[in-house]
Amino acid sequence: MTAIDLNSDLGESYGAWTMGDDETMLSIVSSANVACGFHAGDPVGILKTVRDAAAKGVSIGAHVSYPDRVGFGRRDMDVTSAELTADVIYQIGALKGVAQAAGVSVGYVKPHGALYNRIANDAKQGQAVIDGIKAVDPSLVLMGLAGAPILDLARKSGLKVVAEAFADRAYTSDGQLVSRREAGAVLHDTDLIARRMLQLAKHGTLEAIDGSTIKVDAQSICVHGDSPGAVAIAREIRKAFEADGITIRSFLTR
Amino acid sequence: MTAIDLNSDLGESYGAWTMGDDETMLSIVSSANVACGFHAGDPVGILKTVRDAAAKGVSIGAHVSYPDRVGFGRRDMDVTSAELTADVIYQIGALKGVAQAAGVSVGYVKPHGALYNRIANDAKQGQAVIDGIKAVDPSLVLMGLAGAPILDLARKSGLKVVAEAFADRAYTSDGQLVSRREAGAVLHDTDLIARRMLQLAKHGTLEAIDGSTIKVDAQSICVHGDSPGAVAIAREIRKAFEADGITIRSFLTR
Amino acid sequence: MTAIDLNSDLGESYGAWTMGDDETMLSIVSSANVACGFHAGDPVGILKTVRDAAAKGVSIGAHVSYPDRVGFGRRDMDVTSAELTADVIYQIGALKGVAQAAGVSVGYVKPHGALYNRIANDAKQGQAVIDGIKAVDPSLVLMGLAGAPILDLARKSGLKVVAEAFADRAYTSDGQLVSRREAGAVLHDTDLIARRMLQLAKHGTLEAIDGSTIKVDAQSICVHGDSPGAVAIAREIRKAFEADGITIRSFLTR
Amino acid sequence: MTAIDLNSDLGESYGAWTMGDDETMLSIVSSANVACGFHAGDPVGILKTVRDAAAKGVSIGAHVSYPDRVGFGRRDMDVTSAELTADVIYQIGALKGVAQAAGVSVGYVKPHGALYNRIANDAKQGQAVIDGIKAVDPSLVLMGLAGAPILDLARKSGLKVVAEAFADRAYTSDGQLVSRREAGAVLHDTDLIARRMLQLAKHGTLEAIDGSTIKVDAQSICVHGDSPGAVAIAREIRKAFEADGITIRSFLTR
Repeated sequence: MTAIDLNSDLGESYGAWTMGDDETMLSIVSSANVACGFHAGDPVGILKTVRDAAAKGVSIGAHVSYPDRVGFGRRDMDVTSAELTADVIYQIGALKGVAQAAGVSVGYVKPHGALYNRIANDAKQGQAVIDGIKAVDPSLVLMGLAGAPILDLARKSGLKVVAEAFADRAYTSDGQLVSRREAGAVLHDTDLIARRMLQLAKHGTLEAIDGSTIKVDAQSICVHGDSPGAVAIAREIRKAFEADGITIRSFLTR
Repeated sequence: MTAIDLNSDLGESYGAWTMGDDETMLSIVSSANVACGFHAGDPVGILKTVRDAAAKGVSIGAHVSYPDRVGFGRRDMDVTSAELTADVIYQIGALKGVAQAAGVSVGYVKPHGALYNRIANDAKQGQAVIDGIKAVDPSLVLMGLAGAPILDLARKSGLKVVAEAFADRAYTSDGQLVSRREAGAVLHDTDLIARRMLQLAKHGTLEAIDGSTIKVDAQSICVHGDSPGAVAIAREIRKAFEADGITIRSFLTR
Repeated sequence: MTAIDLNSDLGESYGAWTMGDDETMLSIVSSANVACGFHAGDPVGILKTVRDAAAKGVSIGAHVSYPDRVGFGRRDMDVTSAELTADVIYQIGALKGVAQAAGVSVGYVKPHGALYNRIANDAKQGQAVIDGIKAVDPSLVLMGLAGAPILDLARKSGLKVVAEAFADRAYTSDGQLVSRREAGAVLHDTDLIARRMLQLAKHGTLEAIDGSTIKVDAQSICVHGDSPGAVAIAREIRKAFEADGITIRSFLTR
Repeated sequence: MTAIDLNSDLGESYGAWTMGDDETMLSIVSSANVACGFHAGDPVGILKTVRDAAAKGVSIGAHVSYPDRVGFGRRDMDVTSAELTADVIYQIGALKGVAQAAGVSVGYVKPHGALYNRIANDAKQGQAVIDGIKAVDPSLVLMGLAGAPILDLARKSGLKVVAEAFADRAYTSDGQLVSRREAGAVLHDTDLIARRMLQLAKHGTLEAIDGSTIKVDAQSICVHGDSPGAVAIAREIRKAFEADGITIRSFLTR
């Protein structure tokens, strides 16, 4: 029987500002990447999201970021390794505290935004993130981009890893994400997205933007929490999976 | 044999700005109230302070604060109980993560600045702090002002508490701190301070500002980390204690 | 011919987070209280709101706040007068810079949230705000709560003032706002609100919560920008005013 | 008669944290690059520094930065042009407000830290800064690195510029600063520094790190406000200049 994880970025409200529909999303996904306060998330909101996730049996991951709230962690920053390692430690610790208060634990770490993209290929910042994770809790799993060098780097450093694919993104024929600056990089057709994810879950393949078929080795699928159609996409994927007998289940619970 | 704890506010540098002389202070005190990022402390600096404390066997406490960095946590804020509880959880969690990375653990919580003063007598905010501590780790000790209602409130809630006296502050005849707005509220004479603390450690008494003798039941003495003469005061107290056979030892290690 | 000002809190988005519907609101109101970055508003967003206001001929006011973004400026803070005066100067200056870039100027200052409520009756913080305004530009008008002591204080200090009433709030028989903690404090019936504001504009009176008629001397009406029904309420008031021949016009343009 | 400007980074304290000795520095230099709150400086502190500068007749420049307080604006950030332009407008505006309160005006803009280095050669971010300056006040002078492309870019955009040299930095034979990562990049010998600056002021030349003589066309000399020996270096330069009949005078007052 096939099982796959569905993850989403949650807990991204801040103070009086809301983002996304965490409550609905938590009834669809199996893993919640929860903001830790550096790009989004304040303690009250994070606690609420983690409690809701706990109530629904959704796994908790630390969505660590560069310290850039006004830029939502989407801007590349030249932080030093010492800064990055300490920032990762602090954020994971904070979320672990919140998880403890909610009676659950943090199972994995997924870097957010610009940091996610940077460490996919940048070994220096990647190693700093890995060092931070290992320093707090070496049993934490690192979630990263399927096919990216960071996964090997983390494995070599002794971390367990999980690779993810992006539901609403086009891929090049060599397995990279098509840059958002290119036409067709982001998919909006929920039916198409669901069919693609079904193929990924069952066969480990995707159709690249040039029509070729590529292998994508992913144990999790990301449905963005903050895009307008996120809930619709997530629902459609879940429906397609259930119709086809594919279980949506966190990689942590297997 | 008499033993007492000596605590100090540390880890209060921020980014490029330094505050206090943590390294020297850590060779004098037995407990470090470490800033958690809300009034002071950035991850790199907090990690360094916790590692230094760990190396010297100094106990680690979470110095939680209102979220007011520009005001250094010294301004009273009308936060809701839900906000305060979540802020406390987040900060303790962050410091626990850092402590884990340094191979030690957080043993107690000491609210900082305006929050410290507020909860001494304000049961609503006091309870919110207590709830936050208990949610993360009910084995954490709450450090509070000797004689203040918060200590009873915490005890009734099931927390262990430790009462502290302030080395450089004058007391009223009913055991309160003389307000900083009054003349003579802050003591500067290191010899006098050391003699007073010796009397406190040996007899549990202090001379109040009106000349009367008051009982002060304290298991810890606070030497502020950020005042100019802090190191000199701490050194003089340590010297006086050692000369008199009083052991300086964290209340956590007894 | 009767004319009255309609003001709304705008520019309150922050980074990736949006709040309110500034564009629609700017086609209804005559004055925009623009966030200055302390409780809400980032430079890109503030600039956009000010440019949109400029394009629509809407007057610009500086919506100055306590420095409390996570609390949206809604939490009372015990800032010193020196801090508050400097905070006000800085925020007005920042908005004046943005207004200059948009080819318009800042005409008035309206304190936000907890600061607004505090200075209505607190002469110390009120004077600090007044001092800040006068230091930057003594020709700026202070917008405050109709009937509150702050207006007299500002007048005595040489500032022009404008009094405002709140469209969606109930009043006590002595002209105070009914506390939000009381039932019936906030009105939701757009028809009723429009009728009340019509009476206010034409006769300078309102029906208090006990049924009595009170005098309210207001030259501006506030329709909150961040409440869900804000746009509907603002539209209904505008429609009622236009049907009755009342001009909606900024107090600055008379 | 020869005259040159001496500038220093000031107003870089923050809340309870102090940095540099602004008071002493303001009695030595002729231009103060005042932090605007994004990398350093809170309203109270900025206001104090600007008032002190005003009292001593020192010119005021806006030391604008990336929004990165914890990193002190020293970390390169991939901000968009729209963000950077708005950030510059906001910061200049804020400082103009403070200057207005102190009875003086802002005369120039000097980008800080990573932004300074980035725009020296990056035309995209450079243009965004120029656009921000022009939007607020096109009469503001841009201070930049002597010999760097940003100066030409600004001139072509219609801004007046002033070029600066760094007192404590070594130069390569082609007029670039020796990277801080290289040995000998930073000079500490105050006598040597003073002799070099004398040569620069009188002859427009400096000895490069390889012993060759290079032309450096600078109308201002920067003495860092935050390095330990800053005051000593500034004093020595001033003494050498006065002994040699060179006037220290802001480029704005000529």
